[in-house]
Amino acid sequence: MSRIVMKFGGTSVADLERIKIVAQRVKKEADAGNQVSVFVSAMAGTTDQLVRWVEEISPLHDAREYDTVVSAGEQITAGLLALTLQDMGIPARSWLGWQIPFKTNQVHSAARIEEIGTDEIIKRMEEGIVCVMAGFQGISADNRITTLGRGGTDTSAVALAAAINADRCDIYTDVDGVYTSDPRIVKQARKLDKITYEEMLEMASLGAKVLQTRSVAMAMNHKVRVQVLSSFTDKPGTMVVDEDEIVEKQVVSGIAYAKNEAQITIVGVVNEPGIASNIFLLLADGNINVDMIIQNETEDGRKTDLTFTVTDVDLDKTTSILKGANDIQFDSLLTDINVVKISVIGVGMRSHAGVAATMFKTLAEKGINIQVISTSEIKISVLINSEYTELAVRALHTAYGLDAE
Amino acid sequence: MSRIVMKFGGTSVADLERIKIVAQRVKKEADAGNQVSVFVSAMAGTTDQLVRWVEEISPLHDAREYDTVVSAGEQITAGLLALTLQDMGIPARSWLGWQIPFKTNQVHSAARIEEIGTDEIIKRMEEGIVCVMAGFQGISADNRITTLGRGGTDTSAVALAAAINADRCDIYTDVDGVYTSDPRIVKQARKLDKITYEEMLEMASLGAKVLQTRSVAMAMNHKVRVQVLSSFTDKPGTMVVDEDEIVEKQVVSGIAYAKNEAQITIVGVVNEPGIASNIFLLLADGNINVDMIIQNETEDGRKTDLTFTVTDVDLDKTTSILKGANDIQFDSLLTDINVVKISVIGVGMRSHAGVAATMFKTLAEKGINIQVISTSEIKISVLINSEYTELAVRALHTAYGLDAE
Repeated sequence: MSRIVMKFGGTSVADLERIKIVAQRVKKEADAGNQVSVFVSAMAGTTDQLVRWVEEISPLHDAREYDTVVSAGEQITAGLLALTLQDMGIPARSWLGWQIPFKTNQVHSAARIEEIGTDEIIKRMEEGIVCVMAGFQGISADNRITTLGRGGTDTSAVALAAAINADRCDIYTDVDGVYTSDPRIVKQARKLDKITYEEMLEMASLGAKVLQTRSVAMAMNHKVRVQVLSSFTDKPGTMVVDEDEIVEKQVVSGIAYAKNEAQITIVGVVNEPGIASNIFLLLADGNINVDMIIQNETEDGRKTDLTFTVTDVDLDKTTSILKGANDIQFDSLLTDINVVKISVIGVGMRSHAGVAATMFKTLAEKGINIQVISTSEIKISVLINSEYTELAVRALHTAYGLDAE
Repeated sequence: MSRIVMKFGGTSVADLERIKIVAQRVKKEADAGNQVSVFVSAMAGTTDQLVRWVEEISPLHDAREYDTVVSAGEQITAGLLALTLQDMGIPARSWLGWQIPFKTNQVHSAARIEEIGTDEIIKRMEEGIVCVMAGFQGISADNRITTLGRGGTDTSAVALAAAINADRCDIYTDVDGVYTSDPRIVKQARKLDKITYEEMLEMASLGAKVLQTRSVAMAMNHKVRVQVLSSFTDKPGTMVVDEDEIVEKQVVSGIAYAKNEAQITIVGVVNEPGIASNIFLLLADGNINVDMIIQNETEDGRKTDLTFTVTDVDLDKTTSILKGANDIQFDSLLTDINVVKISVIGVGMRSHAGVAATMFKTLAEKGINIQVISTSEIKISVLINSEYTELAVRALHTAYGLDAE
C-alpha cells in the first residue's frame, strides 16, 4: 500500500472522454490498494477563456477578482472527475482550495502556500475515498480565493504530497517523461528513467515545459519523489529524485534550448563603479528579468560594452527604459533577437573536468560562433545565432554520448 | 438613501457587453447614494452546459458534486461584474455563497436557506462598496457548496433583501414587468404597475416565468417589496407588494395559461372508500405532481371515473404506474395532451360574486367546452382543448375589462 498524489493537466481533462481515461488511471491505483489523492487543472482552454474575459474588462484588474473568476475552471473539473469516479464505482469526492483548506498568503494570482489542512484528506484516504482536489487555488487569511499562478496545479500536487508524506507524486501530462533533449529536434533523444531535482530544475527553467519550476524546487526541498508521465500511454515515466538515488551519474543528462531570448549590448558605457548596478536596478524596477550578463572592457579602459539577455517579449520595454534613463551614458544600443540559448545540464559535471571544453570544441567544429557564455555548478549555457539551433543541439547530444543506440 | 438588492438573470449577463450594461444600472443606483447589493446568475447557457456535462457523466449523479460543478457559473459572473464596476470607478467586490455565508440545509440542488451572515455585507454597503454576490448557491453545515435549484438566484436576492431589511429588491429580467396576460397572445395586454404577492404567486406557478415561485412566497412572508423590470429598457417595472398597498383592487388582475398539462381519466374505477387516496399516494411515491382533480360518479354508483392532470412530461410515467398497480382495478385509461389550463387570477374576486359565472359564460359564447374546473380563493382555472388557447385568453381578457384603451 502506497500513498499517492496524482496530478492531471488541462489537456488530460480537456473533455468528458479524457476525464474518463483519467478516471481509469485513478481507478487502477485505487484498485491496487493505494491511498489516492488527485489534483486536476481546468479543462484545456477554459482558463484562457476566463483570463481573456478578465483582461478584456480591465487590463489592470483587481487580482482578487481575477482569482475568483479563473479558479472556477478547476472547480468544474474536480466535480466532474469525482462524478466520473463515482459512476465507475469508486468512492470519491471533490474538495476546492478553500475546503481543504489550502492556506496561502494574500499575493493574489501568485500566492505562496503557507499551510495545508491535511487531517480530513488523510482520514478520507484512509477510509478508501479518492480525494479529488481543484488545483492551482487556495484561500487567504481574509477568506478570499487565491491562485498560485499559471501551471500552479503542479505546485498544488507536490505541496500536498509533501504535507501528507506521500510515497509518490505522479504528474500526468501530454509527454511521457523527461528526455535527454527535445525529441522533435533530436531523433536519438532518450527518455530518462531518473533525473535529479537539480537537473530538472535547470531543465524546467530552460524551457522544458514538463514541470512548473516552482513545483520542482518544492519537491527538492521536501524530497518528494515526483514522476512525470503521460496520461495518453501506459509507459513508465521519468522519476525526479534525489541525487543519492542515482547510482551511475551521467556527466551530462540533457541538452536544453530556449528560443525566446533577446540579446542587448550597451556599447560604450562610461566605465565607473556602480554603473552595472545602476543599469540592472533600473531594469529590475521595470520588472525586466535579466538572464545572461557579460561585460567587456574596451581598449582604453574608460568605456565598456555590457551585453545581457532578456526574454524577447521584454526587448522593446528594455530598450525604451535604457534610452529614457538620464543618468546612464552610452554610445549606442545593439539588439539581436535571432539568438538561442543552448544549455548542457548534468550533476556529474561537478566532478568532471572538460565538460565546457567539449561543448566549445563541438560548436567550433560546426563553425558556430558563441556570443555569450554563462555557467552554474551543473549547467553550461551559451548564446548562439538561432539558425544553428538544431545543428548545435544534435551535435552536443552526440558529443556527450546521449544518443540512443 | 435606500438599501437596494438588485438581481440580474442569465440573459442580462450573457456576455461582457451586457455585463457592462448591468454595471451601468448598478452605477446609477450607487451614484444616487443608495446602498447596493447585487446578485447575478450564470451567463446564459453556462448552467445548461455544466448540467449537460454532469448528466452525461452520470444520470444518477451525486447532488453534492453537481452543486460544486454548476455553482461555478455564478462565481465567474460575480467576479466579472465586480471587475467591470471597479473599472468604472465604483468600489465593488464579489462574494460567493460560502463567503457571505449563505447557510443552507444539506438538501443539495434544492437547498433551503437557514441563515444568512449579513454583518460583513451591511458593513461594506455602509462603506459605499457595491456587494456583488453569486446567486443560487450556499454552503451547508458540512462545508460543502449547495444550490437552491434552477432559478434560485431570485430566491437568493429576496432572502438577502429580507435579511438586511432592504427597501426594495429589483429583479431584472428580459421582460419589463408583469402583464395582465401574455403580450404575445393578447395585443391589448397591459403592464401592471402593482400586483399583490398572492396574485404573483398564482401567476408564477401558472407558468408566467418572470419570478421563481419560491422567491415570491418568501417575499410574501417577509414583506419584501419586489420590483420586476427589464435590464434592456429604462421603463419602470411592476411592483409586487402587499394587498394593503393597492388601493383600488382589480377584481381580476390577469389571465394566465399553462400548455404543459396532460389530462388522464381512469374510467370505471371500483368506487370504494380510500380508492382515490390509494391512487394519488401511488403517484406521489412515483414523484408525480398531480394538479387538477375531479371525480364523477357513474350511473349505478358502483364505479366511478377519476380525471386529473399532470405535467405532460410525466404522462407516460403516470400511465405505466397505473397500469402496473395490482390493487387498483379500472376499465380503461383515457389520456389527452391537447389541453391547456386557463386561469383567471385576482385578489378582488374574494369579495366579488359572479367572477366564475363570467368565465364560464364567456367560454360558452365562444363554443369552448370546459373539461375540468378547479378554484382557489383568488383563482379559477379551467382545462380546455389547447386549440382554443388564444381565443379563450383574448376573450377572457376583454370580458374582465383588462384590455388597454
